[in-house]
Amino acid sequence: MSCDFIQLANSGVQELHPYQPGKPISELERELGITNIVKLASNENPIGISSMAQAAMEKEFSELARYPDANGYYLKAKIAERVGVGINQITLGNGSNDVLELIARVFVAPEHEVIFSQHAFVVYPIVTQAIGAKKVVIPAKDWGHDLEATAAAITPNTRMIFIANPNNPTGTWVKSAELKAFMDKVPEDVLVILDEAYYEYVEDKDYPQTIPWIKEYPNLIVTRTFSKAYGLAGVRAGYAVANEEITGLINRPRQPFNMNSLALAAAEAVLDDHAYLQKALDVNKAGMEQLEAVFKELNYDYIPSVTNFITVDMGKPAGPIYQHMLEQGVIVRPVANYEMPNHLRVSIGLEEENAKFIRVLRDMTK
Amino acid sequence: MSCDFIQLANSGVQELHPYQPGKPISELERELGITNIVKLASNENPIGISSMAQAAMEKEFSELARYPDANGYYLKAKIAERVGVGINQITLGNGSNDVLELIARVFVAPEHEVIFSQHAFVVYPIVTQAIGAKKVVIPAKDWGHDLEATAAAITPNTRMIFIANPNNPTGTWVKSAELKAFMDKVPEDVLVILDEAYYEYVEDKDYPQTIPWIKEYPNLIVTRTFSKAYGLAGVRAGYAVANEEITGLINRPRQPFNMNSLALAAAEAVLDDHAYLQKALDVNKAGMEQLEAVFKELNYDYIPSVTNFITVDMGKPAGPIYQHMLEQGVIVRPVANYEMPNHLRVSIGLEEENAKFIRVLRDMTK
Repeated sequence: MSCDFIQLANSGVQELHPYQPGKPISELERELGITNIVKLASNENPIGISSMAQAAMEKEFSELARYPDANGYYLKAKIAERVGVGINQITLGNGSNDVLELIARVFVAPEHEVIFSQHAFVVYPIVTQAIGAKKVVIPAKDWGHDLEATAAAITPNTRMIFIANPNNPTGTWVKSAELKAFMDKVPEDVLVILDEAYYEYVEDKDYPQTIPWIKEYPNLIVTRTFSKAYGLAGVRAGYAVANEEITGLINRPRQPFNMNSLALAAAEAVLDDHAYLQKALDVNKAGMEQLEAVFKELNYDYIPSVTNFITVDMGKPAGPIYQHMLEQGVIVRPVANYEMPNHLRVSIGLEEENAKFIRVLRDMTK
Repeated sequence: MSCDFIQLANSGVQELHPYQPGKPISELERELGITNIVKLASNENPIGISSMAQAAMEKEFSELARYPDANGYYLKAKIAERVGVGINQITLGNGSNDVLELIARVFVAPEHEVIFSQHAFVVYPIVTQAIGAKKVVIPAKDWGHDLEATAAAITPNTRMIFIANPNNPTGTWVKSAELKAFMDKVPEDVLVILDEAYYEYVEDKDYPQTIPWIKEYPNLIVTRTFSKAYGLAGVRAGYAVANEEITGLINRPRQPFNMNSLALAAAEAVLDDHAYLQKALDVNKAGMEQLEAVFKELNYDYIPSVTNFITVDMGKPAGPIYQHMLEQGVIVRPVANYEMPNHLRVSIGLEEENAKFIRVLRDMTK
């Protein structure tokens, strides 16, 4: 081939390294020649999907040769009512990744700066890099966001700040007073994207309820997902809440059928499955206690977490430990790519899944 | 609100008017207070989904709380085998819209020109506008592509050319010799995106089989969809075939879970449902003959079509006719936004659906 197509790609894409997702269990079982692998690697909901969501999807089968409702009317109406905003403040996404990317594509150009924290979710640098904008990484404080340093890093070129609350992969969170003080310092022409993917898990009474803040801070955009507590990771459903003007802009380049008909139906249904959500939270809480107790007993330092995962310091490079666990049939997530080479991120599973992880950990620790 | 967020949006987005999809039947029934509406507006497959696709989706329910396979390994392997290329030449998309947009985002910058035809699929101007690149529109010839004029319009700034073959909303197509002569004129650093969404319907022996051409023309990218003949519009599944280098680049900014688990499973299954595809093609052929016969009888000029729709000249502004048909319970598609104010695009339905449209047309024509 005579033409070098890499030279034709936009400069941001030329330097882009794509997101490395966790391996699917079937692929690993094939590779390793083992079965019954326990996957505690992708912060998924271990209890399976909501039966109400499943029933709603089954009802869609007869209409699936038709395009989805491009406006997502019923789902948006339900979300709007639930979070207490107008329907024109909701943007639906094919997972919250989709809305995070849309927001960046609408507002960020190569000449801008985008701020996020060290150890923050890898999608923020990826969407920034894809545009070719400048990534400004704020060193973490106690593994979490240093909001004072973040505010201080704002320049006239700053267009957007990503804050994950709680943060993945550290499980840390920012409290209400601290976040409000930060918002007061951010100029109105700098957008703050508050990624609340793990919102439903948080019990801390000082955790902020931010959607009502949008009236006071029109530059605030809150994103949420159905992939975690609502158990629909395989279905792809997420959303952003913002003021109407920003929402209108984000929706301009949105692919009209970005959520498929099954995702629209499942997400709408699961919002009414209160028993499912409660079970998910109960299982998670019990599993978190199960893991914390063992880490304490075996003297592993862990980062306190309000999410459905916990990140633990193995005291030495975690890569070989990850590999060893894999061979024992337990997948966890190494986070060296988050500048945490000694940590492993462990998703909370069912009691027996956590127990299998614990057995492998005990054997290793002897 | 003190800040004007429109001024913060990228210039392309500031001028962008989003795609206007057809109304869902439920929304229209609500608006008009009628039921049993026949929808011949979105070029959907009227026979419903494949039972093999449905069974494959049902099997996914137990794993839907897990993320999809980000690599789409099994579906890509099946497509690659079917079209006779390597697995590293396939890019999966959330519908072919998704891959069309990805390709543009990877290769097109605001300083570039993108060429497409008058009356061509509206997604081409939308993705070009979203980037802020220059749209170069080639006047149509006999409602279809004028490939000589297209080649002549290439400048040093041209980065990409979209060709829909067959074209939507005109149903026209380009023959093999003509397309090859065109490809010979296109410089290798100008990418040609050949959108073959209606590929499966075409019976003309002079219609080109283009995927083998990629070896000869490394700047050729072919896109296909599962939304039409394969009947999975509500599921969102499409793909691009290109050389490995281009495929690698397109996949860099691709959202890893852009196709959900149900779409991956359904698309893989329907590729093996040969009876379904045959039935879809048979129903379409019979319906096309049914409509053509009536248009001839009633002296309506139509554009000969090799697709699952037919576009007909009503001889006067079609907007009021569309509205009248709507009130009679038949949805077709006005195409004034494609500079075809007197035409209506009619999707081929089931025999009885076509018959309802014909009854309304006959009543109107009296």
